[in-house]
Amino acid sequence: MASRRERALALADGAGARSLVVASPSLVTWLTGFVPEIETGPSPFQLSALAVLAPGRAPVLVVSEDEADDAAATGCEVAAYPGFGICPVDPVGAAASALREVLGSASVAIDAGAFPAALACGLDWVDVGGQLATARAVKDQDEISLIRNAIAVCDAGQAAARSNATPGMSELDLWAEVRAAMERAAGGRLPVLADLVSGSRTADVGGPPGRRTITEGELVLCDLVPRVAGYWGDSCSTFAVGEPAPAAREAHARSRETLEMLVSAVRPGAVAGELDALARVRLDFPHHTGHGLGTAWHEEPRIVPGSATVLEEGMVVAVEPGVYGETGVRVEQVVVVTAGGCEVLSGHELGL
Amino acid sequence: MASRRERALALADGAGARSLVVASPSLVTWLTGFVPEIETGPSPFQLSALAVLAPGRAPVLVVSEDEADDAAATGCEVAAYPGFGICPVDPVGAAASALREVLGSASVAIDAGAFPAALACGLDWVDVGGQLATARAVKDQDEISLIRNAIAVCDAGQAAARSNATPGMSELDLWAEVRAAMERAAGGRLPVLADLVSGSRTADVGGPPGRRTITEGELVLCDLVPRVAGYWGDSCSTFAVGEPAPAAREAHARSRETLEMLVSAVRPGAVAGELDALARVRLDFPHHTGHGLGTAWHEEPRIVPGSATVLEEGMVVAVEPGVYGETGVRVEQVVVVTAGGCEVLSGHELGL
Repeated sequence: MASRRERALALADGAGARSLVVASPSLVTWLTGFVPEIETGPSPFQLSALAVLAPGRAPVLVVSEDEADDAAATGCEVAAYPGFGICPVDPVGAAASALREVLGSASVAIDAGAFPAALACGLDWVDVGGQLATARAVKDQDEISLIRNAIAVCDAGQAAARSNATPGMSELDLWAEVRAAMERAAGGRLPVLADLVSGSRTADVGGPPGRRTITEGELVLCDLVPRVAGYWGDSCSTFAVGEPAPAAREAHARSRETLEMLVSAVRPGAVAGELDALARVRLDFPHHTGHGLGTAWHEEPRIVPGSATVLEEGMVVAVEPGVYGETGVRVEQVVVVTAGGCEVLSGHELGL
Repeated sequence: MASRRERALALADGAGARSLVVASPSLVTWLTGFVPEIETGPSPFQLSALAVLAPGRAPVLVVSEDEADDAAATGCEVAAYPGFGICPVDPVGAAASALREVLGSASVAIDAGAFPAALACGLDWVDVGGQLATARAVKDQDEISLIRNAIAVCDAGQAAARSNATPGMSELDLWAEVRAAMERAAGGRLPVLADLVSGSRTADVGGPPGRRTITEGELVLCDLVPRVAGYWGDSCSTFAVGEPAPAAREAHARSRETLEMLVSAVRPGAVAGELDALARVRLDFPHHTGHGLGTAWHEEPRIVPGSATVLEEGMVVAVEPGVYGETGVRVEQVVVVTAGGCEVLSGHELGL
């Protein structure tokens, strides 16, 4: 199979553009390995990092000087403009000027949902953002390794959730232990999307940890989605603090059986919409049955009703059936599609 | 003084545009009170929330359905498009269509460094992003209250840093306690920009917490910048774990004296560049002497060399002189400019 960059340039070419410039962190990481910071939103000192591809030349990262060392470490060429400093700041003008020098005046494909209007202005552009997101579905070996690492961090978080959850602590108290375990495992701070809800809140499918106190016999639903070195992991388990109610046991058993059935059905040639239907004849839940993940936390193959997407070797899929009544239960594993079926990457405990 | 929305529309009008649409979280929050999520980067299900202003009509938030309840709670009108769900996703098309219905075909001012090219396409737009950022410098009373709340969260984090720091723990271990204290104080998860470095790493001015073990007699430099309800707090202190070296004591004393001198010089009419010079004749440091903050973590008034910005009542300024030799020291307080001088909002301990 052609390399990721070759596939991306072929998509641009198919859209009539010779070059490609992307601004969304998921595409920048996918094409260059550079990992833009995202946790604190847009910076007053720089615009989104840009990755520029053109046939027959090395990829270029257009970044602020603050990002230049990390950008150069990817092996890409770097076009840096002034960033954090004590001079007057003009990130829009500086980034636009840096991009102009790299690009020239060729027609260009961009990811227009993330690409800043200020930088697109004056370019002859066409949007290929949606196609590029879809093109990420089949992973290369280096990507599967990175996802494996991210899943190992999820496992550390899930273990911390179970070992620390005790009656009387708040969801936020438990969250602090979970996040700390993941960041210790990774060796640094991580962006994390997460559901961490307890008791009656589990019926809401998810939500961020809050001040609610966890009490004896309640369920905790813990869905952890950290970004580690640019790739997202994902895992969910639901467990009881103390002795759960019979209804919770029953819901959990059904969710887990459905998860096992789904995992056994994942193989090359399986159709996403049919996998989704397999889950929905057994359980009633309001969300997707599963989704791909990689440099974004949700991407193709989406396991949703009616999807005609056919699974291929190298796709990575998070499968997450659930049951939501007076309390909610969800269990999730990530698998990679192999020649003969799939390999489960998740290593966390799934028991109640 | 005119309201924030009136001032923003006047800026748009001055640029020849009748309406204003902004996409950067800092401007959306400033103009509507809506607080976009930022911690996990762009979502596959939605574009940046948009705030639309036009003369003589209520402001409109163009958001995904997942954000619609929070958007409506601001009192703005809401134009929502499908978000997270089990249908095919097309956030670019959906957001573009929602915006088109709200805007019509009027000429429009935008923040082009953050505004997606896909949404700007077909609009007759002019960029006022830089001017709007500058227009945020003088805060309204409701904003000062929100900043006060964010600073109280900083204070909780600083107290946790001091009370938990012990020899043998890693920077990441300490960070987990600090972040947990801030999130408990706020009652929920927070985006946080932070420096948390120890020992020799303090010489690098800052950096994220890592695996380094804190040892007896070392300094910890802790700079905490959480966003609470859309407004950023900021505070820094540097403290010793055990008995510090004489050179560290001396550097700390000089930083603190300079901070006190600067705070006493902040008043309406003071020129930002002159305040900066006051610090630099005493200390040698590579960063700004201070900066404004609000819906962004760094904005006008920037206290940097040569700045002609004149301080006005209602401006909020973080002042943060430092000394960086073999080890580094920085102390920071946030003040609000009052009629007669300034009020210190920070309540954290500054001692070594």
